[in-house]
Amino acid sequence: MDRLVAAIDIGGTSIKSALVAEDLHVVHTLRTPTRRLGGDPRGSVDVAQIVELIDELRGKAGDATVVGVGVAAPGIIDERLGIARAAVNLGWRDLPLRDRLTEAAGIPVALGHDVRTGGLAEFTVGAATGVRNAMFMPIGTGIAAAVLVDGHRLDADGYAGEIGHIVVDPGGQVCGCGTLGCLETVASAAFIARNYSERSGKTVDRAADVAAAVMAGEPDAVAVWARAVDGLADALMTATTLLAPEIVAIGGGLSESGDTLMTPLREALEGRLAFQRMPTLVRAKLGDNAGCIGAGILAWQAAA
Amino acid sequence: MDRLVAAIDIGGTSIKSALVAEDLHVVHTLRTPTRRLGGDPRGSVDVAQIVELIDELRGKAGDATVVGVGVAAPGIIDERLGIARAAVNLGWRDLPLRDRLTEAAGIPVALGHDVRTGGLAEFTVGAATGVRNAMFMPIGTGIAAAVLVDGHRLDADGYAGEIGHIVVDPGGQVCGCGTLGCLETVASAAFIARNYSERSGKTVDRAADVAAAVMAGEPDAVAVWARAVDGLADALMTATTLLAPEIVAIGGGLSESGDTLMTPLREALEGRLAFQRMPTLVRAKLGDNAGCIGAGILAWQAAA
Repeated sequence: MDRLVAAIDIGGTSIKSALVAEDLHVVHTLRTPTRRLGGDPRGSVDVAQIVELIDELRGKAGDATVVGVGVAAPGIIDERLGIARAAVNLGWRDLPLRDRLTEAAGIPVALGHDVRTGGLAEFTVGAATGVRNAMFMPIGTGIAAAVLVDGHRLDADGYAGEIGHIVVDPGGQVCGCGTLGCLETVASAAFIARNYSERSGKTVDRAADVAAAVMAGEPDAVAVWARAVDGLADALMTATTLLAPEIVAIGGGLSESGDTLMTPLREALEGRLAFQRMPTLVRAKLGDNAGCIGAGILAWQAAA
Repeated sequence: MDRLVAAIDIGGTSIKSALVAEDLHVVHTLRTPTRRLGGDPRGSVDVAQIVELIDELRGKAGDATVVGVGVAAPGIIDERLGIARAAVNLGWRDLPLRDRLTEAAGIPVALGHDVRTGGLAEFTVGAATGVRNAMFMPIGTGIAAAVLVDGHRLDADGYAGEIGHIVVDPGGQVCGCGTLGCLETVASAAFIARNYSERSGKTVDRAADVAAAVMAGEPDAVAVWARAVDGLADALMTATTLLAPEIVAIGGGLSESGDTLMTPLREALEGRLAFQRMPTLVRAKLGDNAGCIGAGILAWQAAA
């Protein structure tokens, strides 16, 4: 009989889930609005919804047996102990999610951090395969990194890889974390849109609009974009100095701007390095399926 | 019959070596001037000297059998493949030292990077034991770090942990690596002495003299020291954001200034952190024996 795993990528507004085959082929996908306790949009995400999703995926598996579950979630996620320590967007604190779901589902469950799980997918079947040292850095509303060193994915009790909070603009704007001048304040998609709106007086919601204005040579857009590229190059130089990735895969919404981002970023990083080895900078490959595929890999590992 | 290992810590001017018991007790130590090929002080360090040292240590072992050798060396050291890729101070480039010594000695040999090997000792029997995430940062002529994440020591083909070359003073002084404003330019013992000499007009050779002037409240010394502490706190904040050590052990000559360094550094780091977890900052415990004890640990692992 065929075997499948259930992969679930929990976001603050929607949950992506899928059945994943052992060759990591995605068999069936669902997208469901995230349900909060008491229907309160600021309430905690309802764990019962995850249990129901596992049942629903089992129903879709037909003759195949679902032998494991992988769950990816944002925040401070302790993968080793299976605990969501501080998932602010989901309203979870010190939640032993792995054990709760294992008990409910009766099959092995693995819990992973969304970005690190996406990294696992990019390192395994995505844009950064075949090397022992790599980084996956999605740039969206926030910026974080999944880091592979010596073939080992860094976790550090869920605290590793917070590259979005390296300070690149000392004394600059206040970041969401409270620190001044974090990488996110110059280079996250949200701040790029905001910084351009403030500078130009033209309100835009999306970094993609700024990228389009860069292509058109609009000076305010060019300046905001150059500041973002400089910040990203500073942060990547630091990461290269400490962690020496051979490949850096850039993902998230901002990577959709393609060469408008990648070409100047590659140049800026190369210009900063001395003895450090220059990583190959590429666009991530798996898009927003990375989290689900990575959760599928975790599920297969848990089921083994 | 008793078993021992030979531990050898190669420096540019002298070589420390020791016989180390399985409980990591140091049985016998030697210190030997480093010998260069052709007697030229800029020549390559003579590998034959290492072979002779192994023989000499075997001679001192008496009835005990020497069952393995551990060697620590500075530079870019690939521990996995046992190759000294670029040990500038020793004049070595792509030298397969592990295989050369294994052949000559006829027993298992392990090669390690001096700082990472010192870190292994501090993580095992020194100031940073009992945790899965830690950092050892010796501050001397240069600054580097050994990093433990999830119980795994980061290597990255020998490139990991070059914290001395994180930029903390953009556009500042030229570092030995060619980059402007690396941590070393404000906080290495060498630069602290030089920066104070330039600022005060009083030539000192050692950072310890600057620390003494700080204790005496001398304003130039206080300013140079504060700049060093700020740079160290910036770099440790970055390392904490990416790697989340639970303990940071500060070693090297500068750590001998004790609370003059540790107290303001602890405060400055604490003041910088937002969501990151604050590491315990302590002085390293093993002094300049760390490299030898770590080489002994590597040797025991190789002999196992």
